[in-house]
Amino acid sequence: MSEYIDGFADANTVGIVEKQSFTFANSGEPLLLESGQLLAPVTLAFETYGRLTPARDNAILICHALTGDAHVAGYHDPAKGGSGKPGWWELMVGPGKPIDTDRYFVICSNALGSCMGSTGPASEKPDGSGLYGLDFPVVTIGDMVKAQRELIGHLGIPRLLAVVGGSMGGMQVLDWSCRYPEMVYAAIPLATTARHSALNIAFHEVARQAIMADPNWNRGRYTDSSKPGTGLAVARMVGHITYLSDEAMRRKFGRRLQDRDAFSFDFDLDLPDFQVESYLRYQGRKFVERFDANSFLYITKAADYFDLAAQHGQGSLAGAMSQAQARFLVISFSSDWLYPTYRSRELVQAMKKAGRDVSFMEIDADFGHDAFLLQNERLSALIANFLDHSQAKLRMEAGHAV
Amino acid sequence: MSEYIDGFADANTVGIVEKQSFTFANSGEPLLLESGQLLAPVTLAFETYGRLTPARDNAILICHALTGDAHVAGYHDPAKGGSGKPGWWELMVGPGKPIDTDRYFVICSNALGSCMGSTGPASEKPDGSGLYGLDFPVVTIGDMVKAQRELIGHLGIPRLLAVVGGSMGGMQVLDWSCRYPEMVYAAIPLATTARHSALNIAFHEVARQAIMADPNWNRGRYTDSSKPGTGLAVARMVGHITYLSDEAMRRKFGRRLQDRDAFSFDFDLDLPDFQVESYLRYQGRKFVERFDANSFLYITKAADYFDLAAQHGQGSLAGAMSQAQARFLVISFSSDWLYPTYRSRELVQAMKKAGRDVSFMEIDADFGHDAFLLQNERLSALIANFLDHSQAKLRMEAGHAV
Repeated sequence: MSEYIDGFADANTVGIVEKQSFTFANSGEPLLLESGQLLAPVTLAFETYGRLTPARDNAILICHALTGDAHVAGYHDPAKGGSGKPGWWELMVGPGKPIDTDRYFVICSNALGSCMGSTGPASEKPDGSGLYGLDFPVVTIGDMVKAQRELIGHLGIPRLLAVVGGSMGGMQVLDWSCRYPEMVYAAIPLATTARHSALNIAFHEVARQAIMADPNWNRGRYTDSSKPGTGLAVARMVGHITYLSDEAMRRKFGRRLQDRDAFSFDFDLDLPDFQVESYLRYQGRKFVERFDANSFLYITKAADYFDLAAQHGQGSLAGAMSQAQARFLVISFSSDWLYPTYRSRELVQAMKKAGRDVSFMEIDADFGHDAFLLQNERLSALIANFLDHSQAKLRMEAGHAV
Repeated sequence: MSEYIDGFADANTVGIVEKQSFTFANSGEPLLLESGQLLAPVTLAFETYGRLTPARDNAILICHALTGDAHVAGYHDPAKGGSGKPGWWELMVGPGKPIDTDRYFVICSNALGSCMGSTGPASEKPDGSGLYGLDFPVVTIGDMVKAQRELIGHLGIPRLLAVVGGSMGGMQVLDWSCRYPEMVYAAIPLATTARHSALNIAFHEVARQAIMADPNWNRGRYTDSSKPGTGLAVARMVGHITYLSDEAMRRKFGRRLQDRDAFSFDFDLDLPDFQVESYLRYQGRKFVERFDANSFLYITKAADYFDLAAQHGQGSLAGAMSQAQARFLVISFSSDWLYPTYRSRELVQAMKKAGRDVSFMEIDADFGHDAFLLQNERLSALIANFLDHSQAKLRMEAGHAV
């Protein structure tokens, strides 16, 4: 999705933040992956905002989507080379915001297998023989969560007040709640699914094929000066179509022409006719600057492989949810055709069947899948209230004064 | 769409048919294209089935979709190199079938700009300097119709009993009815739209970008041994996703694995994990064998440029429809998200506003856009009855015995 919403940090910002780094499995046990392979060492880039209470009961983990990163809120110091752009969920995270950094200690780490500071196919192999490329082991959503678990332990947090995430971040939220039930007090999976449909897999597969069709991909062996940019750009364009809705695209672009008054009729393929074409090309080019093609292959596979019922419930979604202990807030968006509302309903039904405490809301929004990243008062209020109630409940149960 | 439905010609087939060819503008006037450019000569491949009555009142023109061809029904003689595969609408066209070749004289021509025997970018330039490639002029849906008009005149048909077509074929049906109103007695636009939405343009643009990203494309200059096969295959995969529905893909593939019992976990990108991946790759490969990449660019642009209201109604769809005289049968399919039912409703409202005689039906089918090509009793009955009534009405008006 459009991880980067245009605009600048507002007054209620966490301000200047720094990317941090945590490495584990560099001497002790390597990380045992779901595939059975071992990975060591493992580095996760992460950011934190706010302060952990002495009772360590106010930590919220945010899980990012497919091509996101740890930079959720605030901005990196331009004086130190930062872009000055706010984080991808600046709307949601900051002092006085729904995920209120005056109250909560907020953590986000870049997913294992990504290329935004965490170990992935673009990382150096530990034996010094170059970059991993396709030698990187297959990682799953569960592996991403296991790596995050190490970070949370390192930060001295015994239990998370909440785990929050949309899209592939929501898959991690679900996996967290089933894999480490005692560590997740509340969970907010947004615009997500318990497993990919054939349609979801199909879109990812076309994107992967576009990358692999680029001769520069070269079976994953490329350098910065010869990266598979055209293939990766096409892959990104496919993604961007799925993040919007028919209605959102009509409103945003319609059939408006790009810098011309009439059709070109000269078949100049370098100059787009329609604004929507120009938009897609721009998104493709921009993505190539910031993302690694191999990482894209690995992370899309992780999302395709994800199957909560198979991995935690022996094929039963209710069985998986009976592993969980968290209270849930499930949110879907009416115009999201990537992970439509009926996928969230399946989840909610399984949660109820398993006796979980769950609230569900379909938010009426015509921005498609991307809606969870955009300004929405209803979304903000739901998340703020759910977190507030969760903290009050947790403290009551723990014998604290509310 | 999947122009070729698996299966063999049944007993009610037109049997062995031959592809014919008609060339015009080889000595007289060249074809004046909508862009203002001239094209000469122009060849159209076509097929006909059944016999024209002496009154010449039983001719039905079928317009094919994006990558279709003139081979609608029957089969090409295997003894003469034919594949023995039935035409793409064998289900609909033949003796005793809804478009009954015992009653009607059926014509289909390959669209101008295509590569199945009609003049297009894969044709030789008349000056002998090689293939057109990107020197081929931009063609529009209207240009395709103008070329078909020449063929219909050549066949000695003063008025068509009906023009029938789905998807891009439906666009031609609509253009026919507005461009040559006195020549179209009845019209059946199926699963189509009066103009492309931003979403439609976006999918086409990604497909075009995939082709142009293939270095073998080489700005349209390629040979048979160096064609942009990987890019064209990716383009086709994008298309195939849009021809199916979420539900159709779930039923057809679900999350079933391809020739394996568990996820590969070895990241072998040559071996698909899921059946849907294998299906898409197969469709991509098969398409490359039969279709020209430049033709694909030109024809997708023609569909994107199509705007019935702008071209025939000065921006008003009802204005365009007030040019038409035909009686209409408009059909949409409930799970078609490429040209959803609301696009057909817009058309029908404009037709009603313009005082046209129009019947509309949304057929409940979960096969997505491809539904119009598949066996559907309701679709068959609607088309058969509408043609029957249209012929009776035409003959009554013409003073013939019914």
